[in-house]
Amino acid sequence: MSSRAFPSKEKINTRKHYLKVKNNLPAKNGIIYHRGGITHTRDDTDVELDFRQESNFSYLSGVEAAGYHIVIVLESDTIYLIRPDTPKAEQLWKGIPEPDAILMERYNVDHILLDTQLKEFLKHLEPKVIFTLDITSIDYNNYIPNEFEKRIDREHLKAAIHEARLTKFSWEISLLRYATHISSHAHINLISHCGEKYRHGQEINEAELEARFRWICGKNGLSRQCYIPIIASGPRAAVLHYTNNDKIIPNDQHALVLVDAGGEYRCYGSDVTRTFPVSTKFSKEAKTIYNIVLKAQNAVLARLKPGVFWKDMHDLVVRILCHELVKIGILIGDEKELIQLGVYRAFYFHGKYTNSYLEGSFKLVMGTGHSVGLDCHDVGGKEISILDTTRKGFPLHLLLKPLDKDMVITVEPGLYFNDVSIDLWTKNSDYRQYFDVDKINQYRVIGGVRIEDTVLITCNGIENFTVVPKEVQDIEALMQ
Amino acid sequence: MSSRAFPSKEKINTRKHYLKVKNNLPAKNGIIYHRGGITHTRDDTDVELDFRQESNFSYLSGVEAAGYHIVIVLESDTIYLIRPDTPKAEQLWKGIPEPDAILMERYNVDHILLDTQLKEFLKHLEPKVIFTLDITSIDYNNYIPNEFEKRIDREHLKAAIHEARLTKFSWEISLLRYATHISSHAHINLISHCGEKYRHGQEINEAELEARFRWICGKNGLSRQCYIPIIASGPRAAVLHYTNNDKIIPNDQHALVLVDAGGEYRCYGSDVTRTFPVSTKFSKEAKTIYNIVLKAQNAVLARLKPGVFWKDMHDLVVRILCHELVKIGILIGDEKELIQLGVYRAFYFHGKYTNSYLEGSFKLVMGTGHSVGLDCHDVGGKEISILDTTRKGFPLHLLLKPLDKDMVITVEPGLYFNDVSIDLWTKNSDYRQYFDVDKINQYRVIGGVRIEDTVLITCNGIENFTVVPKEVQDIEALMQ
Repeated sequence: MSSRAFPSKEKINTRKHYLKVKNNLPAKNGIIYHRGGITHTRDDTDVELDFRQESNFSYLSGVEAAGYHIVIVLESDTIYLIRPDTPKAEQLWKGIPEPDAILMERYNVDHILLDTQLKEFLKHLEPKVIFTLDITSIDYNNYIPNEFEKRIDREHLKAAIHEARLTKFSWEISLLRYATHISSHAHINLISHCGEKYRHGQEINEAELEARFRWICGKNGLSRQCYIPIIASGPRAAVLHYTNNDKIIPNDQHALVLVDAGGEYRCYGSDVTRTFPVSTKFSKEAKTIYNIVLKAQNAVLARLKPGVFWKDMHDLVVRILCHELVKIGILIGDEKELIQLGVYRAFYFHGKYTNSYLEGSFKLVMGTGHSVGLDCHDVGGKEISILDTTRKGFPLHLLLKPLDKDMVITVEPGLYFNDVSIDLWTKNSDYRQYFDVDKINQYRVIGGVRIEDTVLITCNGIENFTVVPKEVQDIEALMQ
Repeated sequence: MSSRAFPSKEKINTRKHYLKVKNNLPAKNGIIYHRGGITHTRDDTDVELDFRQESNFSYLSGVEAAGYHIVIVLESDTIYLIRPDTPKAEQLWKGIPEPDAILMERYNVDHILLDTQLKEFLKHLEPKVIFTLDITSIDYNNYIPNEFEKRIDREHLKAAIHEARLTKFSWEISLLRYATHISSHAHINLISHCGEKYRHGQEINEAELEARFRWICGKNGLSRQCYIPIIASGPRAAVLHYTNNDKIIPNDQHALVLVDAGGEYRCYGSDVTRTFPVSTKFSKEAKTIYNIVLKAQNAVLARLKPGVFWKDMHDLVVRILCHELVKIGILIGDEKELIQLGVYRAFYFHGKYTNSYLEGSFKLVMGTGHSVGLDCHDVGGKEISILDTTRKGFPLHLLLKPLDKDMVITVEPGLYFNDVSIDLWTKNSDYRQYFDVDKINQYRVIGGVRIEDTVLITCNGIENFTVVPKEVQDIEALMQ
């Protein structure tokens, strides 16, 4: 695939993004002002850090470069893109800025201004309200005249953008599909490559797999990852956010490799996990656990459509996992009671708010997936923008309202034999009766399994963007 | 090459780093306190950014992970490594911390403490002086007890560490050599790959080359780049810090590709540039310019040894470039006058302080190279730590004292046909008489050439770590 291949003929239509945002604002006068990201250097050095545009700015402007601002006049829907004023001497180092006419055409804006003109321009506009975002890295004072301090509204724009971003436009869907297709190719390449190396008796390092994943993505235009890849082999597959990726893959018939990685295209991401056997064949125990997770995932995939509540999907996953863990003898007791007590969380501890004895009283459970878009854990709509103010925790939105057409979400059940987790549960006198420790030890060697697809909610079901095999026999075939 | 291959049997001996630093401190009592880097998330999201240890912390501790501190008692040379106290619930996500005994052995420290114990520990120590660094991202207040505020010395440790880091220990040399060797392999791979694609009539994108460079580095253990790679084809080769890396390489007999990239191993970097023809053969004009740059580089490489002043090397490069540009008719006039006026800077505008009409009165010229170590533009020793307080500009040290054994530096002359630069000079009525614009236009199509090696200063010369061919016929052969 050529690295130029644009996934769609359709251009990103940021003007429509804006109009959707405007529709969610409480007032239709005043202006929207937002500053895009700026470049940073590492600590006290001149080493420039990789730049990635702030997601909301990307949504409103489509600009991927640093140092831009945007001003939109709500009454007239006039969009001003403000570009950095680059001195000649800097142009020797960074190149000649593109002509305004090209920027206007590419970003579909009405006017281009220089950042050195911005303050005067705002003074002249005299907006009644300035809708803006309260994102730490942004210094308003340099650009918004002091006398407008009381006209700044830092609350409503966030809710309006989050609500807009929750369902995707056709061009956004096209970019998310492309990112997930290419990431799928990279997953297939990794699985096949590991099979080949195993057959040749060659050692594999997790670092090499990460480098390979990034390469396949990069040469197809996904130059950035949506999140730090997780390349977890052996016992590390049980550590949810393991990202050291620096160990030799253990040559063991039970060992699995869990790869959770997805590239990003024009800031639109993907999130895919596959788990496969080091030895090209799943051991009996590995196959059993793998098929339980797959069963849970398939059950959800078959039911997804507009109107479905995500909480019901998560509960379905929990019921299936619990039922199967009882069936193979790892959990002991009444399934309903096990669920109520949260005992299953010994092996399925996704999500931050739950009902287990470790995490306090029941709040929210949402570990089976999340929205994907301009961020890996994407925004959660209007209601969530109020609840989840910092977005530094796992976003919670999928619980609060039914799924809708044009949402893009992950479905990612898992089962983990994590030593810390097993100890915490099986050594607690209130809970040890629900576990068969000998059985657990029989399965402990496999580490963990997660299977994760990124899918689009359609009118009556889903389109699964993820095209990596996941049936046991298909993965084994790919490794031969 | 296996990704496990450690470049040397010798361990990083951070205790010797510390003793060298101590030697440069004005007092030998009190303590050194420094906090290592912490992880950050992007904007208001939970997307974790790639973590890279702060270089001075890396020098003192060798720890590459986030959240550590170090305390060293100067009187007794006792080293305390302070590790983060990771709650059980976090261990499910990030893994079990390594046992203290392993950390003590690996990092050669005397004691391990938890960060939650640090403040009390410092109170108990009652140090007379606390030597520390004033690096923005570090919050002292949480850890240094308030009553010691007046005992904090934020000045001397910086000079002491910068002086220590300027010449390298054997294990540092070994790591820098390894990083440069692997980066060299990646350069060779890129040149050869471009040759193959050209011969098959296939298009190449700069992004693909960047992905390939990172891959070759990554699969050999260099999972991070020392700086954002510059993959500049055609006219972009004349833009010194072009890093968009997203254009199709022009299929033109004159076009060159300039690749300035180097991987990093355990925080030790490398910095290498090669320039090669798209069409596998240098055009006549390209060869002429290329060989001028190569001549300048070879002249410097032949003269480098302890005692040599870097300013003399830079002046040598300028004399050669000027002489040759006059010879081929691009510059017109007396060579000494051209140099004095800085006219050569129309084509060689490396470095930030100079004598050209654009940049004001003469200050410092140092564009032909810089020190390399834990940072790409590495520290400049004691004197420079005072002059160059932020290190956000190009480091200036190589001018101030003679080169010494065990310094690692780059030698990187270049010539650029940059439209902005050419216009600034040739359209200025005071200077246009020194240029033959028709001649310039004949060469303008080639964009630019830079040739950069990372070398070690030895007792009586250099060891060139860079093993990528650079003679015209060798590059052409590599592309066949």
